[in-house]
Amino acid sequence: MPTPTNPWSPGDHPDARVQQQDLAKARQAATFDPRDITHILYDGVDGVATRNRLRQLIEQDPVFRKSDWYFLSRTERIERALAWSKRFIEIKQEHGIDQRELLLMMNALGDWLPTTLHSSMFQLLIDSQGSEEQAARWGPLADEGRMIGCYAQTELGHGSNLARLETRATYVPETDEWDLHSPSLSSAKWWIGGLGVIATHALVQAKLWIHGKDYGPHLFMVPLRCRATHQALPGVRVGDIGPKLGFSSVDNGYVLFHHHRIPRTNLLMRHAQVDDKGVYHPPLHAKLSFGGMVLVRTQIAAFGAATALSYATTIATRYSAQRRQGYRLDKTNSPMPPPSVPENVVLDYQAVRYRLFPLIAASFVIHGCGRQMFTLFMNMQSELAAGNTAPLSEVHALSSGLKALCTTIATDGMEECRRVMGGHGYSQASGIPHMYATQAAQVTYEGENYLLTQQTTRYLLKLAAQVQRTGELEASLITQYISRLPHLAGDRCDPATTQQDWQTRGELIVAAMAHRAAVILAAAARDVQHKPWHAMNITCYRLSNAHCMHALVATYFKWVADLKADQDISTPRPLLDALYRQGLIFGLFQMQQQLGDFLEDGYLAGAQGRHIRAALEALLETNAPDAVGLVDAWDHSDYFLNSYLGNYDGGAYKNMWDWAQNEPLNVIVRETGVPPGYAAHIRPIVQGQLPHQDQSLQIPARL
Amino acid sequence: MPTPTNPWSPGDHPDARVQQQDLAKARQAATFDPRDITHILYDGVDGVATRNRLRQLIEQDPVFRKSDWYFLSRTERIERALAWSKRFIEIKQEHGIDQRELLLMMNALGDWLPTTLHSSMFQLLIDSQGSEEQAARWGPLADEGRMIGCYAQTELGHGSNLARLETRATYVPETDEWDLHSPSLSSAKWWIGGLGVIATHALVQAKLWIHGKDYGPHLFMVPLRCRATHQALPGVRVGDIGPKLGFSSVDNGYVLFHHHRIPRTNLLMRHAQVDDKGVYHPPLHAKLSFGGMVLVRTQIAAFGAATALSYATTIATRYSAQRRQGYRLDKTNSPMPPPSVPENVVLDYQAVRYRLFPLIAASFVIHGCGRQMFTLFMNMQSELAAGNTAPLSEVHALSSGLKALCTTIATDGMEECRRVMGGHGYSQASGIPHMYATQAAQVTYEGENYLLTQQTTRYLLKLAAQVQRTGELEASLITQYISRLPHLAGDRCDPATTQQDWQTRGELIVAAMAHRAAVILAAAARDVQHKPWHAMNITCYRLSNAHCMHALVATYFKWVADLKADQDISTPRPLLDALYRQGLIFGLFQMQQQLGDFLEDGYLAGAQGRHIRAALEALLETNAPDAVGLVDAWDHSDYFLNSYLGNYDGGAYKNMWDWAQNEPLNVIVRETGVPPGYAAHIRPIVQGQLPHQDQSLQIPARL
Ligand SMILES: Cc1cc2nc3c(=O)[nH]c(=O)nc-3n(C[C@H](O)[C@H](O)[C@H](O)COP(=O)(O)OP(=O)(O)OC[C@H]3O[C@@H](n4cnc5c(N)ncnc54)[C@H](O)[C@@H]3O)c2cc1C
Ligand SMILES: Cc1cc2nc3c(=O)[nH]c(=O)nc-3n(C[C@H](O)[C@H](O)[C@H](O)COP(=O)(O)OP(=O)(O)OC[C@H]3O[C@@H](n4cnc5c(N)ncnc54)[C@H](O)[C@@H]3O)c2cc1C
Repeated sequence: MPTPTNPWSPGDHPDARVQQQDLAKARQAATFDPRDITHILYDGVDGVATRNRLRQLIEQDPVFRKSDWYFLSRTERIERALAWSKRFIEIKQEHGIDQRELLLMMNALGDWLPTTLHSSMFQLLIDSQGSEEQAARWGPLADEGRMIGCYAQTELGHGSNLARLETRATYVPETDEWDLHSPSLSSAKWWIGGLGVIATHALVQAKLWIHGKDYGPHLFMVPLRCRATHQALPGVRVGDIGPKLGFSSVDNGYVLFHHHRIPRTNLLMRHAQVDDKGVYHPPLHAKLSFGGMVLVRTQIAAFGAATALSYATTIATRYSAQRRQGYRLDKTNSPMPPPSVPENVVLDYQAVRYRLFPLIAASFVIHGCGRQMFTLFMNMQSELAAGNTAPLSEVHALSSGLKALCTTIATDGMEECRRVMGGHGYSQASGIPHMYATQAAQVTYEGENYLLTQQTTRYLLKLAAQVQRTGELEASLITQYISRLPHLAGDRCDPATTQQDWQTRGELIVAAMAHRAAVILAAAARDVQHKPWHAMNITCYRLSNAHCMHALVATYFKWVADLKADQDISTPRPLLDALYRQGLIFGLFQMQQQLGDFLEDGYLAGAQGRHIRAALEALLETNAPDAVGLVDAWDHSDYFLNSYLGNYDGGAYKNMWDWAQNEPLNVIVRETGVPPGYAAHIRPIVQGQLPHQDQSLQIPARL
Repeated sequence: MPTPTNPWSPGDHPDARVQQQDLAKARQAATFDPRDITHILYDGVDGVATRNRLRQLIEQDPVFRKSDWYFLSRTERIERALAWSKRFIEIKQEHGIDQRELLLMMNALGDWLPTTLHSSMFQLLIDSQGSEEQAARWGPLADEGRMIGCYAQTELGHGSNLARLETRATYVPETDEWDLHSPSLSSAKWWIGGLGVIATHALVQAKLWIHGKDYGPHLFMVPLRCRATHQALPGVRVGDIGPKLGFSSVDNGYVLFHHHRIPRTNLLMRHAQVDDKGVYHPPLHAKLSFGGMVLVRTQIAAFGAATALSYATTIATRYSAQRRQGYRLDKTNSPMPPPSVPENVVLDYQAVRYRLFPLIAASFVIHGCGRQMFTLFMNMQSELAAGNTAPLSEVHALSSGLKALCTTIATDGMEECRRVMGGHGYSQASGIPHMYATQAAQVTYEGENYLLTQQTTRYLLKLAAQVQRTGELEASLITQYISRLPHLAGDRCDPATTQQDWQTRGELIVAAMAHRAAVILAAAARDVQHKPWHAMNITCYRLSNAHCMHALVATYFKWVADLKADQDISTPRPLLDALYRQGLIFGLFQMQQQLGDFLEDGYLAGAQGRHIRAALEALLETNAPDAVGLVDAWDHSDYFLNSYLGNYDGGAYKNMWDWAQNEPLNVIVRETGVPPGYAAHIRPIVQGQLPHQDQSLQIPARL
């Protein structure tokens, strides 16, 4: 009978249970029922039920096993991901799942697949950029996976500056075809998800040329690989671009065309058309095709960033609630308590709370703001459908800036969550390194974050000019502060505000953020008169972030207020308090990080800096009992998290132990008795077989 | 004859050369000869020669091939790393290389090995913690690799709080042995580099127990694996802890002991001893063994952080000097120039400079400060040798705080370098993802960064108390500002300082940093009177960073001044200017990031914020021609960088293209005609063999 303290079966040791108890205790402390928040986050009881149904389809399917994921090589991951890709198509057909639900299900996996862009962007573009006839022709084929596509825009030489894409589609009147050609090394399509190994087709952005005239980039449906053999078609050179920071299960690829011919009717013709005489018919509204991009950015900013961040805060919080280390000492040099006194869990420490809670808060703030953004977007879509392109600019500017700000907060925040966990956070077992690697791409794609802020700034400068010209502005929650531009001079935060005020009144934060954005905008509007645009880069970044930071807090507090007012759901008071507190923690944290902006023109007085810091410190304490409940509310399944430190039930040490036993190196040692490379590299050293080793060394018997 | 524009041999395309020309041009713009800085960085002509000699030994040796590194699985990397470990021992013996040079050579590799801690910490500890007899007994064996060791301190359950380590070494009088035992799951040694597969021995930190009395953690030499078979010895359970964020070529491992017996004389006895009667003789000076830790932290902070950061700035700067993308536009809505106008390289953009140049600057500032730290450390060592432990506190506090600050700057900075490169930075080909993953551990090991700041703060509070008590303080460059603590109230930066002043006068920055640190220290000294220590965590972090930020700029400007004054080397003026400028850029960047600290008590007036930002903007422009020269000065070899985007000669697109051809997925396609998993997962979908696929779909012939 193994004694419980037998180290040879450490997983059975009683201290494996202590961590589970600690986590359970921390969970009980919450002032609300996390499921109530879950319902708010995922569209009510029905939304949660759908979510559960969909994720169970994959979590209970052995094909989707992930437990060995961190041990797999890239090639093994790609192979696994291909199996998953196939299984998704099967499940979809078996269960009659629609496209939206398919995407929800794919999200529940936690990793991108070779077919993720096929099921999202490729299919969306066929519908939105193809003519009705084209959508009818290709849609069902794509839906069934009989063609598998990717979206090929970026080239080795051009990403941000699309105007200089080099790939050409030249109209050949003789055969009524396009001649697709890549004129240079830098014109190779590059980075294209799905292109590396799986895609049979690409939607290619290429310059459309007719009779020596360049009509700019257009989308073409281009067959790449033979349907029968999967070999590259003649005139197509295609492959994988190699390993990346993350996205290890996606086959980002390259392609070069050598006078590859495709039918004229493979130009996507919903907006622009070329007829069989080779005549180009421009789109009615140049901006009509913008909608998709705005939607993607909105989704990345709002739901992508919030989910990614909450993934990491979930793991870090649950782990911190079960990692006992050290003591809360009263004095600098208090003596260490005797071993009989249990150590504190690290979630008890102020520094851990200071790093973690503003990130938990950020995940909620971004989500709440995303909800409002989504409404804005839907309104814009109906306006667009009715031919009104006016709202496009506001939503486009905001979605760009928010994408930049929120993905930066989320990406940096995930890494902070990993660091806050100390050594064990650095293990792949924590899950965060893997997820961070994927998330880190979001600061770059769908618009590089720094570049996006130039777009937001352009829009804000237009509004500022308008206010200066006309003295007025159509007010929206997000832009109304701009109408105060001419009246900023005397704007002051009431100097009588106390720590207590900052601790309870979100409107103080919103007002401060609005003022800050307005001041930076006013300065930018002056600067742009005499500075060249290229010398405004830094200002653009500051301004866009200030604008969007205001948008975040303003829309978030509005979202919470709407929840409070909503009679249908009658949200419990402690829960509303907790959500409101997230806005305060997020806002105060941001303010003290950038305090200079608020002090510089005297909006805040020096003493208020101290109040803000003190208010934040106090709120971190108030928030502590709710921490685990807040992350539980995101309802990320253990399967999704794939974390041995952040699973629902806890037991981090035991989990890590069990997991490590499956490390391939250990498996090899178990199977062969020695590690790989032993005979060639270790034995010769230890046994003194290297040419210059000193053979006379005496080795003590017991060493 | 392949035409030059033939996309099927893209590597031969003429545009492959454009990037090399762009980089060469950027290089020529430097106002100084980078080799002059190289000599300063690496100890003059002799130091550089040694460096070159050592690195050539590995770079010209085919065993050390790294070109396929990013394609290898972890198991393959470990095997390769074992081959490298062996080769290092051979080279060392073949060429009669000493320990210091061996470590330099191992550093030149760019990756850690299973034997890195053997050659550094393990051997160092034998010498510094072992008695002379022990050093003589084990030293040569370790030197020859006849025993390969690791340093086993951390346990699954305890890292930071060493006082609660659970592994026990109990004295057994009957046999004059130690009984090593791991009483619980959480007592498993964990994270130990070299333990996973290679180590035959560990230096184990275990609680020393004699006759029921606990004498606290001590170091024991513990045999782990059988010399003949490499199997774990009876009573030892050992293995690898599994994959991590980085350190993929290191076998971090675990070990549990089950009443494992070792001779009494395996306790390291330079400081404490246990005699053969089982009597414990405590060390003369409790703190004597601190020196090593301080040294390691100093090295990590100074040279480790600077090297890691300069690695990334080298890559990002060289790439940015050859990536053409977009235009510097004059007006918000300037029209795009015609295609005949070449695009700008991205290094021309203000935002790129803003992100990159302060990091280039940081690498120099950290290095310069590290030089001064090293001098401090050497002085301390001689004082210690003479029995004077007084300087230990200052150096310990400073090395802790600097380690925390500099590794955070370097780690975050590396990731920023990757992001500034846009999409291609995300490829493993850039090299940064791999190197970042290794660097990221440095914020955690050798003292978790947040915890370290508590130690620095403790020391500062002592000095503050001393000043308050006695009104005086022994002045050092780094702590002299503390003597001004009682006189802070009226301290103001001269309100007449102009942008021009900030742009040229480093002493303004040093003074501001000193004032800021003093203000935070004064507040902390008040707070600690009434706040419990555990509520001071946030303050500790702020204060330690403020103190060390001042130390960084103060010592850096001193270092540059010393260089200027040094008659022996007669450094050229433009080079001194460039180095001085790095201090300004670094300091101003930091100030504008934390401007609130300087405005809060009125030390700066609001308008000075604008001056500081404008001064920084102006310096970024001045610095632009020197950017490539500054990173070249670090003289990181192409082998070391292992970057296809940051190699010396440039040609990023061609390099990426050539590299991608070796991606294993592409190799498999070349060899077998189809990607792995094709028959099982791709063909069935595309060819309509899934159970629910619609067989009636018509597929157009040319699709
Ligand atoms: C994981 C991943 C997946 C991807 N998937 C796809 C895909 O499926 N299909 C596809 O088509 N593409 C894809 N991409 C490509 C992606 O869209 C581009 O990488 C992205 O748009 C960034 O552009 P870039 O790489 O050209 O950056 P660059 O423009 O080269 O950026 C480099 C630097 O220059 C700066 N810069 C550039 N221009 C200016 C300027 N005018 N002013 C100031 N600064 C400037 C940027 O801010 C940045 O710091 C993917 C990329 C990644 C990383
Ligand atoms: C790559 C790598 C290699 C390593 N190699 C070795 C090796 O060879 N040998 C070896 O012995 N060890 C090794 N280690 C272990 C390393 O030394 C520890 O992980 C490190 O000391 C951090 O300690 P921890 O993991 O216990 O962090 P924890 O103390 O658990 O930290 C978790 C969190 O709690 C916070 N916290 C903890 N205590 C307090 C407190 N009192 N007040 C406020 N906050 C607190 C921390 O700031 C942190 O945010 C390695 C680690 C890594 C990542």
